[in-house]
Order: sequence, then structure tokens, then C-alpha cells
Amino acid sequence: MTSTRCRATSEVRPEVMDFSPYSAGLSIDEIKERYGLDTVVKLASNENPLGTSPLVQQVIRSHAGHVFRYAQSGNPRLGKKIAAFFGIPEDGVVTGNGSDEVIDLLIRAKARPGVDNIIAFDPCFSMYTVLTRLCGVELRQTPLKPDFSFDWDALVNLADDKTAITFVTTPDNPSGYTPPVEEIMALAGRLPEQCLLVVDEAYMDFTGDRDAYSMLPRLADFPNVCVLRTFSKSMGLAGLRLGFGAMQPELADYLKRIRPPFSVNILAEHAGMAALDDDTFYTETLRVTAEGREYLNRELAALGCTVFPSRANFIMFEAPVDGAALHEGLLRRGVILRPLNKGYGLPRHMRVSVGNNHENAVFIAAFKEILDAR
Amino acid sequence: MTSTRCRATSEVRPEVMDFSPYSAGLSIDEIKERYGLDTVVKLASNENPLGTSPLVQQVIRSHAGHVFRYAQSGNPRLGKKIAAFFGIPEDGVVTGNGSDEVIDLLIRAKARPGVDNIIAFDPCFSMYTVLTRLCGVELRQTPLKPDFSFDWDALVNLADDKTAITFVTTPDNPSGYTPPVEEIMALAGRLPEQCLLVVDEAYMDFTGDRDAYSMLPRLADFPNVCVLRTFSKSMGLAGLRLGFGAMQPELADYLKRIRPPFSVNILAEHAGMAALDDDTFYTETLRVTAEGREYLNRELAALGCTVFPSRANFIMFEAPVDGAALHEGLLRRGVILRPLNKGYGLPRHMRVSVGNNHENAVFIAAFKEILDAR
Repeated sequence: MTSTRCRATSEVRPEVMDFSPYSAGLSIDEIKERYGLDTVVKLASNENPLGTSPLVQQVIRSHAGHVFRYAQSGNPRLGKKIAAFFGIPEDGVVTGNGSDEVIDLLIRAKARPGVDNIIAFDPCFSMYTVLTRLCGVELRQTPLKPDFSFDWDALVNLADDKTAITFVTTPDNPSGYTPPVEEIMALAGRLPEQCLLVVDEAYMDFTGDRDAYSMLPRLADFPNVCVLRTFSKSMGLAGLRLGFGAMQPELADYLKRIRPPFSVNILAEHAGMAALDDDTFYTETLRVTAEGREYLNRELAALGCTVFPSRANFIMFEAPVDGAALHEGLLRRGVILRPLNKGYGLPRHMRVSVGNNHENAVFIAAFKEILDAR
Repeated sequence: MTSTRCRATSEVRPEVMDFSPYSAGLSIDEIKERYGLDTVVKLASNENPLGTSPLVQQVIRSHAGHVFRYAQSGNPRLGKKIAAFFGIPEDGVVTGNGSDEVIDLLIRAKARPGVDNIIAFDPCFSMYTVLTRLCGVELRQTPLKPDFSFDWDALVNLADDKTAITFVTTPDNPSGYTPPVEEIMALAGRLPEQCLLVVDEAYMDFTGDRDAYSMLPRLADFPNVCVLRTFSKSMGLAGLRLGFGAMQPELADYLKRIRPPFSVNILAEHAGMAALDDDTFYTETLRVTAEGREYLNRELAALGCTVFPSRANFIMFEAPVDGAALHEGLLRRGVILRPLNKGYGLPRHMRVSVGNNHENAVFIAAFKEILDAR
């Protein structure tokens, strides 16, 4: 077939033409093949260091025969269980196909294309920028401070009477920086009254101190705040896609109106409920992560890295060597990290997920080997 | 807490305020409880009459421990397998969290809010209307003919130089009407050149004759056409959410750029590949559906219904009694159908999914009982 250019398929919205071409990352199997490896330690995506909860696995196996049915529209049983677990009103919970979907619903509900704006720090979670641009909404950003902490004044100065949403991530990614919750509360009081403050707490469980850092228990006092949580990290369900937003019931009602009826899959629903039941797995996840974080902090400092203090299940560090070379050297030794050169313009910064004790030790040993070989 | 109205949560886009409030349908368990039933036959959502493929169940069970990992972004292995199975180019396949997501991506890629328009028949699949309105794009519709066949001239007359997409469903839902593919080919030639023709073939497998009805094998000759398929029906994966669009690689590339990286969950990826491998289940699904469709056609006619000819896995009929009363009477007897009074304004029309032989017989027996009791 000769390729004739067809307007129906080549003409897309101008915003869409600005998006970067898609490229899928290498799979673990592809990395094994490329580098001739039998095992790979993946510390690149902040997944759960213990894997999948045994209770979740059991529930998935027992529901394998039910996937021919649609889940009940809106997954009300799951919403009820989430509300009870986190002590929040049931009618303020909106589940999504990952918190990615909830972010999309929030932008689509609140922000008028070509009229409103959205504000966030730079860098921030890529979904804030991608989905804001896709919606044809202006994105305003102010840089993080050099130590990756938050310049609240600069953020507030971006806002005006057309600011629909402010996004803040705490603990932040990739730095792990976590401001005291009093600072978020102060921000909520300083934003224009029509602006929704979305606090993305994907990694909050790993702080081990929600009183000091989380807005979730304080939502009733801050009606202009929405908190995002995910089941991808501390609950170990990254591949199943489940997240939720907790917000005022009035806003939740609007999001439920525009959400496709079956976006959360039936195994995510069952697995999410099981994850909330598995106290042992959850507690052990937090313990292993805290222990591994301390180990990595210590070892990375001993190897000459500048380590950024993190309360999340990952650590950002500045290596004493070039990040791209370190990344490649680690890959050859079967360890996958996230280099921060491309997306963040930080040539020596890397992000490592806190793995289990074995994974952490393999990473540190490989890192030592690379430094010794210089 | 006294409810103080907060602009940040009460102010949403005007389009969003027009959406109907959300209400979750009753679950099978809730119906059992309300009517005091031990078993329920659900023939309301066009799910697979055989349940879940044994091979799919086995694959889900064997991957239950892997859900803590993110799937490879964009699910390239699944895309490759879909392309091979359906004999289409791999770089033209876009998978989604159900075909719902692909519909959303198509509208967001192509249609400029406040500028472009989208055309479809009325009634049509609710996702076309809901997602078009959510995007702030004008929707133009023309009614189906009284026999639920398609008025192509009226549809083409809606189009102008701002028409971004035309949606057509074949076999159509809820009527089961399926035009000869030559009519779709003719439509593709009559639409304005910038307009993408999206042919939703969710139920195409049940026609048993893709040469006569499907655009999928003809895509290379019609660059302005995109075909949608779902794994929810003939493949039995409704609850896992998996669909795809087949289109020109240039358009597919744009959709992949704007698609969130992990929208298709990891068990949908594995289950989808297994479903394509399970020839036995697929063939038996089509056989049981064709046999059940013939049985229901015959029995419904014998009960005095007007039966609309269907090539899908459901049948629309006009009952000799009021549809709401029939719906309620069937529910009391443990059979769930889809009444068409509310969404379609058809007080005596109902849609019944073709179930397995047992389910079909239970439905017909209950229907007879209701008619006899008059």
C-alpha cells in the first residue's frame, strides 16, 4: 500500500501535535536479554518491596472466574470500604483507574479550556502537566527551591481568579521532600476561593506519621482541598490500577457523573478490598521500607553521594559520577534505577526505590563495584 | 460540621453541571436480597454466555503474584498479539481500558472544543454522547429509522467542514441491526475528508461473517476509518476492561502520545493474550450464542413479541405487555433484562442478552408465567 496522506487521520488538535512521540520502556525480560542476565532487581518504579499481599493473591485467584461480568458501576462496595478504612465520608470518595484517572476527572470537571489555569511546581508529576495540556488548559509552574523544598509564596503568586486547581505532591517525587502539614493548611488558606487544592499523597503511608504530614484526617476543616491516594505503592497493586480522591461530597458527585461507569476493573475492586484487610502485609511493608530507607541513606552517603532526606519509599541522591554512566553500569549488573538526567536535567541525580533487604544490598554492591572500577 | 458552600468544590464547568446525577445499578446480591432469591439469571449486559475462558482463569491465577508491578507502558506485547490475531498492522493498534477509553482518546485527539462537531445516530452508545459533551464538543444526531435501520443520507447531511468524527455501531445496540459492509464503505466515501469514521464493532464476532459485515479486514483501503473492538463480549473479559482501536499508524501514534502510560491493567494484558489463544472457548461462545439466538427468536415470537432481527449476542423485542411491568415481573422471578423505556422512550421494548441454554430457558419460562398470570 502506498502511503497516501489522509486528513481524517493526520489532522489532530494542535495541543496533541505538541505531545512527545510515545516510546515504551524496556521490559524486565528485554533487559535480561539485552544484558544477558538471569535476574534483574528493579528499583525504578517505587513498587512494593514485598510484592503482592498473600490475601490479595488469594482473592484474585478466587475471582478469576468472575471477570466475564462487569463490576457494579462505580464500585460502591469498594468506596464504602475505603471510607471506613480511612475514616472519611463515603460520599466524598471517588475511585479511579489509578489516581491518574481521578486527576483527569478533576481537571475535566473544574477547568474550562482556554479560560482557566492550573498551577503546580516544576518539576511535578507528569500526569498533571500532560492532562492539563490535553484539556487545553493553561499550566503555570514555579521551580522548586535548589534543595527541592517548596516556595509557597512563588506558588501562590501564580494564582489568579481563573485558577481552577493547584496540585501539590507530598511526599514529593522524585525528591522525597515532605513539608509539615501546617504548611499545606496555610496554603489552603491563601489560594483564591474558587481554586481547588489537590494534595497528592501517593507516598504518604511511608512517612509513618499522618498527623504530622497528611491532609486526609483534616479534610472536614478544609472544604477546598481534595486528597489523592493510590493503591499502587503501600498496598502493592500498581499493575491492577486503583486510586481514589477524597473530597467534598458535592464535588465527588460531579466527578461520578462524568466518570465512565466501569473504569475500575473488577479484580482491582476485589483486590483493593483485600489489601485494606491485610494489616500484616501493610505493616510489614512500612517496616521493611523504613528499615531499607535507613540502610540506603547510610550506604549511599558512605559511597560519597549527596542524599536528599526522604519520607517516601524512594531516595533521590546525587552521585559522585555521571548519572547516565552509572545507570548503564547498574543495568549491566542487573539493577534498574531511575536516572533524572532526561526529565529533570539533573545529570548526576538518580532515584532509587527502597527495595527489600536483598534488593537493596544487591544495588549497593553493584554501585560499589562501579565506583571501585574507576 | 455545618455545610458551608465552598466555591472550590461547588463550581464546575457548565457542561459538567448538565450531566445526570450518578446512580449505581443494583448488584446481583442486592437483587437477590430484595426479592428473596437464591439464584439470578442476568441477561442485561451482553456478557459472555459461557463465563470466563478456562485458559484465561489459569493465566489470571498464575499472575496473581505479579500485580504489584506496573505493566510495561502501552502493553506492547498485547498490541503485537492483537495485530497478529486480527491480521492488522501492529503500529495501528491502540489498546485501552475498555473501548470506552479509546473512544475518549479519539475525541480528545481529533475534536477541538467549541469548534468541531461529532455526528452519530440517535439513539447511540451512551459513551459517544457523554464523552463528546464532556469534551465541550457539539454532538449532532439524526434518528434511526422506525425499524432501527440506518438513514445514511440523514447522517451525511449532518456533516460539514467542522465534523471531526462520525460514530457508527455495527451490529447496533440495542436493536442488533447490522448493515451490509458495502453500506459502511459507501459512507466512508461520502463523509468530508477531514472526518474520521469510527466503526464500533463490539459485537461483530457474533455475526459469524466478517466478510459480509466488518470493516476490520478492509482498513488498508479506507484510511479515514477506525474500527473499535472489545474483549468484553466474545472474549469474556468485561470486568477486566480491555478494548482496542485499529486505525492508520499516524493516528495511532497520536493516541499513544496522549494515552496515560498504564491505563490497561496487567491482568487485562495477560488475560487478553490468553483469550486470543483459547480457540475452543471462542468457537464455543459463537456456537452457543447462535443457537441461543435462534431459540429466543422462536420462543419470543411464539409468545406474541415483535422480534427485531439481530446478528449480535442480544435481541430487542417489543412485548405484548408493558415493559416496566414485565421487567419487574422477571426480576421477581430472578431474571434481569434491560428495559428500553427510560433511555430510549420505548415502553414495550426490552433487550435480552443471549445466555446459555439454561439461562435462556429460565427466561422464557418466567416470561410465559407472567403472560399466563394476566
